[in-house]
Amino acid sequence: MKTLISAALKFEHGKLWALNQQALPQQQEWVCSNSIEDMCDIIRSLKVRGAPLIGVAAALALAQYVEQGANDAEIQIAAQQLKSARPTAFNLAHCVDRLLEVYANTQDKAALVQEAEAIFAEDKALCHKIVQNGAPLIKANERVLTHCNTGELVTTGTGTALGIIIQAHQQGKKPHVYVDETRPLLQGGRITAWECVQQGISHQIICDNMAASLMRARKIDKIFLGADRIAANGDFANKIGTYSLAVLAHYHKIPFYVVAPYTTIDQNCETGNDIHIEERDPAEVKGAFGGFGQVMWSPKESPAYNPAFDVTPAELVTAFVLDSGVYSSNEFKNLEKA
Amino acid sequence: MKTLISAALKFEHGKLWALNQQALPQQQEWVCSNSIEDMCDIIRSLKVRGAPLIGVAAALALAQYVEQGANDAEIQIAAQQLKSARPTAFNLAHCVDRLLEVYANTQDKAALVQEAEAIFAEDKALCHKIVQNGAPLIKANERVLTHCNTGELVTTGTGTALGIIIQAHQQGKKPHVYVDETRPLLQGGRITAWECVQQGISHQIICDNMAASLMRARKIDKIFLGADRIAANGDFANKIGTYSLAVLAHYHKIPFYVVAPYTTIDQNCETGNDIHIEERDPAEVKGAFGGFGQVMWSPKESPAYNPAFDVTPAELVTAFVLDSGVYSSNEFKNLEKA
Repeated sequence: MKTLISAALKFEHGKLWALNQQALPQQQEWVCSNSIEDMCDIIRSLKVRGAPLIGVAAALALAQYVEQGANDAEIQIAAQQLKSARPTAFNLAHCVDRLLEVYANTQDKAALVQEAEAIFAEDKALCHKIVQNGAPLIKANERVLTHCNTGELVTTGTGTALGIIIQAHQQGKKPHVYVDETRPLLQGGRITAWECVQQGISHQIICDNMAASLMRARKIDKIFLGADRIAANGDFANKIGTYSLAVLAHYHKIPFYVVAPYTTIDQNCETGNDIHIEERDPAEVKGAFGGFGQVMWSPKESPAYNPAFDVTPAELVTAFVLDSGVYSSNEFKNLEKA
Repeated sequence: MKTLISAALKFEHGKLWALNQQALPQQQEWVCSNSIEDMCDIIRSLKVRGAPLIGVAAALALAQYVEQGANDAEIQIAAQQLKSARPTAFNLAHCVDRLLEVYANTQDKAALVQEAEAIFAEDKALCHKIVQNGAPLIKANERVLTHCNTGELVTTGTGTALGIIIQAHQQGKKPHVYVDETRPLLQGGRITAWECVQQGISHQIICDNMAASLMRARKIDKIFLGADRIAANGDFANKIGTYSLAVLAHYHKIPFYVVAPYTTIDQNCETGNDIHIEERDPAEVKGAFGGFGQVMWSPKESPAYNPAFDVTPAELVTAFVLDSGVYSSNEFKNLEKA
């Protein structure tokens, strides 16, 4: 495999490296993946995170494994291991299945490796198209809210929802970003805030429960966020808290944009009811941990509930910003049926 | 002043003590207040918290100061200092003004001290009435959500919203409580969870952004929470995140109950627009701290926005559960005009 370098993922001299996103922004530490088990652990522990990047990372891990000499049976087992590392994000399954399909068609391991390289390059190109499609939606001086983290750390390019905001900033539109901290793993308060600092974008971190009162005060003009899996009817799964924002945006008549590459769309998933939602360790809700340290504030005896994602019905989406264009919910449904 | 003892506040042998609620549940530590400055600091730093208890604590501090020999001018200054320690909770102003009024009418310092004792006793009695009025609203095996902390630590009695849930539990109705962690200061994940453990109440802690998806899944039957100030028209201020829950409950047609003693009602405040919302240190949003330790996860350079409360319009309230009865929003408005 050739050398591949992005902000949070790289392949060099046969070694696959991922920026440990659990340690950001306090530590910028790269972890090495030398096996399928390594990558599954890296994905499960969210060191690599963000739907697009998980897909690319899994593809590179499978290609690396093939270059290490994996046989056909081992490739199949590895593919299943990778796909089950995180069940909700569709890009993971999409990318792994693409490699399997190329290999099934060609029986050529070099072709599988090339497909992984192509996925890496394509992800960057998709971001470029998404950002071109989305940036015109932000007008000068608008106040936008985003949730979780969707910048250059979750793709091999400039990102999805946050990529659009960064592009608008670079176009001189001076957006102000309300950054949802995104409990429990704080991808907003840690990473999106850090990217805003890096880019010099005006921003304020808020707790997730503050967004509604900002909406009521008419301080949020638009909402942009990503998706982990979009069903054929436009229902979509995304980081927990997304559905809450969608309902609140609907109530306050604030445009709500979902931003993703086509690799996030699961054509075999008819509606949001078919999306499996990953539940994670209750300890994530009972405290906080990362490169900043570790604290546990809740009583040991207390149970907690920790769904990593929620599902938002298509009717609450103003538009989907994809690499191919911007589509209302109805347009999206027809698009998928075409 | 005679000996007064409640779960989180006590006066004994001339000394006023408050349970440090910032240190809960990891540490059960009592702090001593020997002056108005001490109590202002205790209130501002949330060692004493919860609208009813803040009012009682301020009354006891003023009575203590009078017993220490404060003159008329000093009493007036102290009253203003106490009232401005936290601007949103109305009980604080209500209780301090009651002492001033008694003193103005009687010019008798002993009468002021007796009024503080009466406030302490009355708060407990009000809780008893509230709980009697509210407990019938919870049916067997219902799943209720609560926000922030409204149990026996915020009153001199059994609490308000959480008091009702505790009563329903003691009546054998087996409620299951979803405990909003209540960022940024985690009064839910720390203290409400701890009270549920103490009482043996079935509960699960959730992040604030998870409530919406539970509502969509029809896993929340009713919502009970407190208030810091209720305007004459029924608009009310409460812990940040309350308005978000009110809109989500409205959208999902889930009953939304606001529970408070009459001392929370500000007749001079016509609507929610007149309620001043306290903004607190941005550092509270950029990390977490308490008896469990201290962490800061956000970039130093990032600004944060930290309103401690939000305002919910009366039309989103199913009913107000007061010491005098249970009232719909319309009934509440008429009640106040009578």
